Amino acid sequence: MSGPTLKLNSGHEMPQVGFGLWKVDNATCADTVYNAIKVGYRLFDGACDYGNEKEAGEGVARAIKEGLVKREDLFLVSKLWNSFHDGDQVEPIAKKQLADWGIDYFDLYIVHFPVSLKFVDPSVRYPPGWEDENGKVTPGKAPIQETWTAMESLVEKGYAKSIGVSNFQGSLLLDLLRYAKIRPATLQIEHHPYLVQNTLTTLAEAEGIKVTAYSSFGPQSFIELGWDKAKDTPVLFEHPVITKLADKYKKTPAQVLLRWATQRGLAVIPKSNNATRLEQNLSVTSFDLEKEELKSISDLDRNLRFNNPTDYLGTLHIFA
Amino acid sequence: MSGPTLKLNSGHEMPQVGFGLWKVDNATCADTVYNAIKVGYRLFDGACDYGNEKEAGEGVARAIKEGLVKREDLFLVSKLWNSFHDGDQVEPIAKKQLADWGIDYFDLYIVHFPVSLKFVDPSVRYPPGWEDENGKVTPGKAPIQETWTAMESLVEKGYAKSIGVSNFQGSLLLDLLRYAKIRPATLQIEHHPYLVQNTLTTLAEAEGIKVTAYSSFGPQSFIELGWDKAKDTPVLFEHPVITKLADKYKKTPAQVLLRWATQRGLAVIPKSNNATRLEQNLSVTSFDLEKEELKSISDLDRNLRFNNPTDYLGTLHIFA
Repeated sequence: MSGPTLKLNSGHEMPQVGFGLWKVDNATCADTVYNAIKVGYRLFDGACDYGNEKEAGEGVARAIKEGLVKREDLFLVSKLWNSFHDGDQVEPIAKKQLADWGIDYFDLYIVHFPVSLKFVDPSVRYPPGWEDENGKVTPGKAPIQETWTAMESLVEKGYAKSIGVSNFQGSLLLDLLRYAKIRPATLQIEHHPYLVQNTLTTLAEAEGIKVTAYSSFGPQSFIELGWDKAKDTPVLFEHPVITKLADKYKKTPAQVLLRWATQRGLAVIPKSNNATRLEQNLSVTSFDLEKEELKSISDLDRNLRFNNPTDYLGTLHIFA
Repeated sequence: MSGPTLKLNSGHEMPQVGFGLWKVDNATCADTVYNAIKVGYRLFDGACDYGNEKEAGEGVARAIKEGLVKREDLFLVSKLWNSFHDGDQVEPIAKKQLADWGIDYFDLYIVHFPVSLKFVDPSVRYPPGWEDENGKVTPGKAPIQETWTAMESLVEKGYAKSIGVSNFQGSLLLDLLRYAKIRPATLQIEHHPYLVQNTLTTLAEAEGIKVTAYSSFGPQSFIELGWDKAKDTPVLFEHPVITKLADKYKKTPAQVLLRWATQRGLAVIPKSNNATRLEQNLSVTSFDLEKEELKSISDLDRNLRFNNPTDYLGTLHIFA
């Protein structure tokens, strides 16, 4: 496995830099994954909700078929969507997702959001998304404990090597740790210089849970969705604190942002469609920022969250 | 019952303005409660952790004995301390607290913090506080669901008319609502112009849960504890936005702050040792701020929390 890894509490090693599959087009996804493997990526961070697991799996299959990698060289991540939180729906959907990928286990399977939505039959609508055909959001009935117990049985049955959570607040994570028989190996959160979440990463570290950052470039990921909050926020790639460091180290602003996160001990999962940037993002641990420089980036914190159901749904206030 | 009330989802009415017993000295507590009843207070917000429930009960008993009020005119609130979250410890400690007050039911009994600490026998140390004799914080094993189920049985057995929670984040509250047979009637949170928590109050309102604000005066409550964060924050009583409105309405800054909260639909529980201020705080609903004025106060929000275990314990990151 190329590049640095993080040792998870499950005993498995997870690459610290991976490739995030959110918003990767279906048309290009297989090629993107295949090319990323060629460049050296080993971790792919997918999800039911991204709607491209079949195509990601095609890219993986091609790379394996051509002998670029073996399955065990890869670290394939997927996520349980909110509509499948009922205890008896977790295993069926995980198996469907495995079938879509064309593999027989996930290296890491994550509860995508700490919120249960009403079950949607995959034959009716898949991925189900937040809203139904009429734009209605219908909460489900499953407490997190019911969902987590079903997640644990995925490990016991071999469908997932490790399990984790995403978008959890501190108190909910602490509560889960009270009843978990298998502790979450990772916590995946929105994390960038505008949303540093220092206390949450401290909590995770204290509890032996590795943190994966998503949306490492801040507003960048959300501008293309046309979100006002993102458009109205200074782009991090052009922020003087970032560009100054990029100039100093002869790196791209993206590399500076990723290095800041990885030096904080986090895993990152950037995506890129550009071959050069793919390589740049992967080689992010090839330089070190100084302590004061890390702090100058962290000081940009403004507790600014983009991926918040409160903003885009007006309900499911999981970050309140 | 004097003054406005809020109708709880349990069917009971709760006074919107009450008297908070946090930091009320044992030496003066009985007199303070007695005098507050005389002035017109009907709600008293106590807690195991405040260490003054016996004395508060003495003040209540004297007022009842003298015919100032009947028990049913009062709305007595207490809270379950973290050390008693184990399912089999909830009822015994609630009964002890009732005995301390000298009453046979609480109008409202609240989970004080969403965090379980190791059980402490009340005969050994009471109130147990966060830390043991050696300054050590020892987490307990009870998930919130276990605690809440025991809280529900207090209602079924008549020890509490309503039950609620305090210091819960949105995601944890949403999770509790998935398994609650009896929904929390109230959510008590730190709330002042520096910590407006708009999304959390929106969530509570949408779920039919009334919100009680504590520390309505912001840093004020914490300055006397010698906390740097409070000392370094501009005092709200002297903030020009507040004093301007106080001048306009010929009210005290405290009254302006309480009116802002009550016009937002929240209950408040200020305390005072001064007879004049006791009356002023109670008569807080005697004037109305204009919509733009309410907004000017809400705009002071800086997401600044004082009562945070992260700050004073360095662990139990329930607000991460």
